[in-house]
Parts: sequence; structure tokens; C-alpha cells
Amino acid sequence: MPTLPVTIHMIRAAAERLAPHAVRTPLLEHPALNARVGGRVFLKCENLQRVGAFKFRGAYNKISQVDPKAFPGGVVACSSGNHAQGVAAAATLCGLRSAIVMPADAPAMKIARTKAFGGEVIAYDREREDRDAIARALCVERKAAYVHPFDDADVIAGQGTGVTLDAVLVNVSGGGLASGITVAVKDASPSTEMWTVEPAGFDDFARSLASGKPERNERLSGSICDALMAESPGELTLTIGKALMAGGVAVTDAEAAAAVRFAFEELKLVLEPGGAAGLAAILTGKVPAKGRSVAVILSGGNADPARYARIINGEL
Amino acid sequence: MPTLPVTIHMIRAAAERLAPHAVRTPLLEHPALNARVGGRVFLKCENLQRVGAFKFRGAYNKISQVDPKAFPGGVVACSSGNHAQGVAAAATLCGLRSAIVMPADAPAMKIARTKAFGGEVIAYDREREDRDAIARALCVERKAAYVHPFDDADVIAGQGTGVTLDAVLVNVSGGGLASGITVAVKDASPSTEMWTVEPAGFDDFARSLASGKPERNERLSGSICDALMAESPGELTLTIGKALMAGGVAVTDAEAAAAVRFAFEELKLVLEPGGAAGLAAILTGKVPAKGRSVAVILSGGNADPARYARIINGEL
Repeated sequence: MPTLPVTIHMIRAAAERLAPHAVRTPLLEHPALNARVGGRVFLKCENLQRVGAFKFRGAYNKISQVDPKAFPGGVVACSSGNHAQGVAAAATLCGLRSAIVMPADAPAMKIARTKAFGGEVIAYDREREDRDAIARALCVERKAAYVHPFDDADVIAGQGTGVTLDAVLVNVSGGGLASGITVAVKDASPSTEMWTVEPAGFDDFARSLASGKPERNERLSGSICDALMAESPGELTLTIGKALMAGGVAVTDAEAAAAVRFAFEELKLVLEPGGAAGLAAILTGKVPAKGRSVAVILSGGNADPARYARIINGEL
Repeated sequence: MPTLPVTIHMIRAAAERLAPHAVRTPLLEHPALNARVGGRVFLKCENLQRVGAFKFRGAYNKISQVDPKAFPGGVVACSSGNHAQGVAAAATLCGLRSAIVMPADAPAMKIARTKAFGGEVIAYDREREDRDAIARALCVERKAAYVHPFDDADVIAGQGTGVTLDAVLVNVSGGGLASGITVAVKDASPSTEMWTVEPAGFDDFARSLASGKPERNERLSGSICDALMAESPGELTLTIGKALMAGGVAVTDAEAAAAVRFAFEELKLVLEPGGAAGLAAILTGKVPAKGRSVAVILSGGNADPARYARIINGEL
């Protein structure tokens, strides 16, 4: 195992911190899905996690270690919606104030839920404004700690909490979930292939793994997978990915929608499009499951009701 | 424990038969639900069961014991849709033919899924025809075994497979699931209260428990809980209920719809209205959860997509 920014010991410490607060989500196997692909597929249901997505684990591990005396203004973060909810809920649990910089076109239900978990939402224009600059200015002004959505060792360690498998598929935006889980899985099972899954047109992580250097996406918006549109990989997350991952694949909006519909019809699980990308990669055979045992991380279930209705009725 | 038509030994034998075929569905606890009711609520997710509802367990335990030489025509059943899928899937697994008598107005997706699992569907008019007479004539004509949806000791034993709790809430149509689970829970934990939940206007089981004799519903159709409209309790199921159950409550269509919406928004689980009745009873406080530990059986997830879309968008 090469020297990496996150160790298995950091992940074990995070798991202890999270035990009283995170949901121990089930790993499900379903006869209809196994029959469809001809192998065994295990679904790690992080759509059933507190706040409806895996983001709570990374946020809580980070925020529970923030010293309120050093940061009287609490915490600040940038997010398309799921990290926002994770930060708001974790900060409220820790008795801290939270402010989250969110795109003005984020799903309304993600904005509403972030507020309901106790967060202050600050909207920005995805095409014209720089969310990082807004967040960093807020941190200085309020004496608040910045909680990066993925490129922070404590966030990655928290997201790595939680299988001998031929392959594990993880949805990727910036790669905090994928790199954290990769360190944990590779420690327990070095022969397991780790695959990233992204929306087509937003496969910066897969291209970066292939080229060995950070690649950027051409567009900043335009996928139904609103959770998976980070512009480029993190420095920490790509370092871990280059050392330990097998590669990355991309799925189209139509393939992600078909996976959301499959989960509704057959699995009875609510997934948002970005949370279903890995399932789409298995259903389309982009990562083969035939005759193998593979696990798919179902990373989020915060589906916008109007869009979800169109997807399950076959209109999208 | 009084002498009853189903014993804990029959349930243990059923559990052995089912182990290689049924999904071991998770028992989930969710922070948002616990906070809402002020107690601990455990959700037994039978919407994640094979065929999308608990019915598979009872049907497989019965059908796997049917002798194909004595019944060359396979099996015949009557069902509003979930028992239909359970019988079709179990018969196909056992290499037997199946015919299911279903109401012509059953949800289209339940009819389509029953056929996909290998069942022959025979439609009848809920207001004008007698489904039992149609099914019994088919059994004679084809030399087929009849698989009752609830009032059969093997069906009840299968449904009883699978918690020290203050109370358990079970959705009831004829009571196969409720009576099977009651025998199993009461054996392990005599102090646990067992509660039935039915749609308002279709609370024959609750009224029968109160009066001590079988009561009938006035109407045969008209609830969005299409899975929970049996006309009266079974003889076996009521015998068990009278001996061991605390009582029954009823929920309105609006309350069931609100519970489906809560499961979509907060729990990320797909429930059909009838599968969400017990959750509705907890959310409305009809069975109190404050300061207690209660379990709710989420009995089915075969939601019609058009109706589901209206419910999650607040139109129903």
C-alpha cells in the first residue's frame, strides 16, 4: 500500500465518531437485479443515510472536530445540495452555525431540506460567480471553518466508513466518497477493482485517471445528475485514485433515468439520478457483472418530486 | 400460549424452506422518523422482498409443498395483485403452472408483473362476479391446488418468518401476514402489543377483534389501498387475532398518501398506499410511538407510477 493522504486508521477513528449518529445502511441483494445481469450485485444503500445521502458521514467527521472557540462563526461550505444537507445537519448536531453556498438552480427540495436541517443558504449563479471565492470570503468575515465537499482528509475518512468483491462501483463528483471507500476496501481486499461512475460530459475523474493529471469538464451544468457535476478532481482524491483505482466509466442522462426507474419498479428504493449512476453502469454492462460479485454504492436519494414523476412514467 | 392453527414450529420450518429464496429484508431505523414521533420506530422493509411485497413468503412456503403428481394443473389463486405476484413467482421457481383470478380494476403494473413472473391472469368484475367460485371451478377443471391469500396454515406460517418491542403494527387485508407475525412475535416477546392497520371503511378485522365475531365491510372497492380490501377476516386469522392481538386501527386515504410521501421524501423507500398504512398509523399517532419502541411492517412497494407521481407531488 503506497503512502496516501488518508489511512485506514483515520477511517477507523471516523467510524467510531460516527457510530452514534450515522445510519448503518443495509447492503441489499435483489433476485430481480441478479437475474438481469447474471451475477451477484450488492447495493450499499446510502440513499437511506441520514439526510438522504452519504455526505453526512464526511461532514460529521469533519465538523465534530471543529473547535467552536477558534471558529465562533461555525462552518461554511459549497454544495450542489447533498453536501449542503450533510453540513447543515452535522453542524446542528454539533451546536454550530452553518452557511452553505448553493447554485441558484439547485433542486428546490435540496435547498428546502438544507434550511430544514438548520443551514443558512446563500445562492450563487453557476455560470457567472465563483462559489469558492464567496465561501472563502464568508469564512474570513465570520471566523468560520471551511468544509470542503471532498478534498479534505477528514471528509474522505468519514466517507470511507462502511465488503471480498470482484468490483465496487462508486459515483463520483469530486471523489471524496470514492477515494475514502477505495482506501477502506483496498485495505481489506487488495484484489477488488474500484471503478468510478460519472455523467457523460462530466467524466473529469475518469479522464484524469487515464491521463494521470487533473482534467476539467467543458461544461458547468446540463446533466440530470445534479449531484455529480464537480469541474475537476480534488488533489487528495486524485492522488488516491491514481494509486488504487481500476478506472472510470460514464453514463448518459437516459441511462441514469432508466436506473432510477429500475430502482422504483424492482428495488423499491428512491434514488436521485446522480445516486443511480453506478446502478446504470451495471445495467448497461459498462462495468461487467456477469458471473462476478460486484457492489454498487447508491449514493443519494434526494430526488426532485416533479422530475422523479416524469422519470417513473417514462417521460425522461 | 393457547392452541392455535399455526405454531412457532411451523414458522421455523417455513423459515428453513424460504432461506435460499426469500430476501432477508432489512429492519431500518431512521433519525427523521424517530425525531418526528419522539420514540424509536423500526421499519421491516417487506417492500424490498422478492416480488416487491411480503406475499412471496407465504406463497412459496405453500407451493413448495404442492405435489405435482396430485396437482398436474399447478396452482390457482385469487388476488388484488401482490399475492398474485407471489404465487406466480413461487410457482415458476417450483416448476409449476399458475393461474391467478384478479379484479379487472387492479393496478396495471400488478397485472403486468404477475404475467412477467410467469402467471396466467384471469380478470373478473369486483362488483358482479364471485372470485372464489371462479377459482374453485378452475381448480376442479385443471386438477390444480388452491392457494388461499391468507386463511391457510402454510401461508400464515410462511408469512410469520422473520424483534423486544413495545408494539408491532401490521397492515391487514385478510390477516395472513398479521396472524403469522403475531404468533412469531408473541412466542419471542409475550408483552409486545400487536396492532392491525386497515383503510377507513375497510376495517373489518379491527371490528371483528372488537366484537369477537367475523364482521364484513359495506363496500367492496373505493380505497387507494388496493392491497387491503378483503371483505372479512379469515377463520384461522381471526382465531389467532382474537387470542393474541391488542386491537386494530384505520387510516384514511389522505393519511396513507401522506405516509407514502413521507417514505419518498425522508425514508427513500418506495411504498404502495396499502404498504404504508402502518406508517400512517404511527405518523398520525393512532398507535402512539412517543417514548416507546415500535416496529412497522412495510408490507408492499408495488406502486402504480401514475398514482405515485400524483402522491409525491401533493395532488392526492
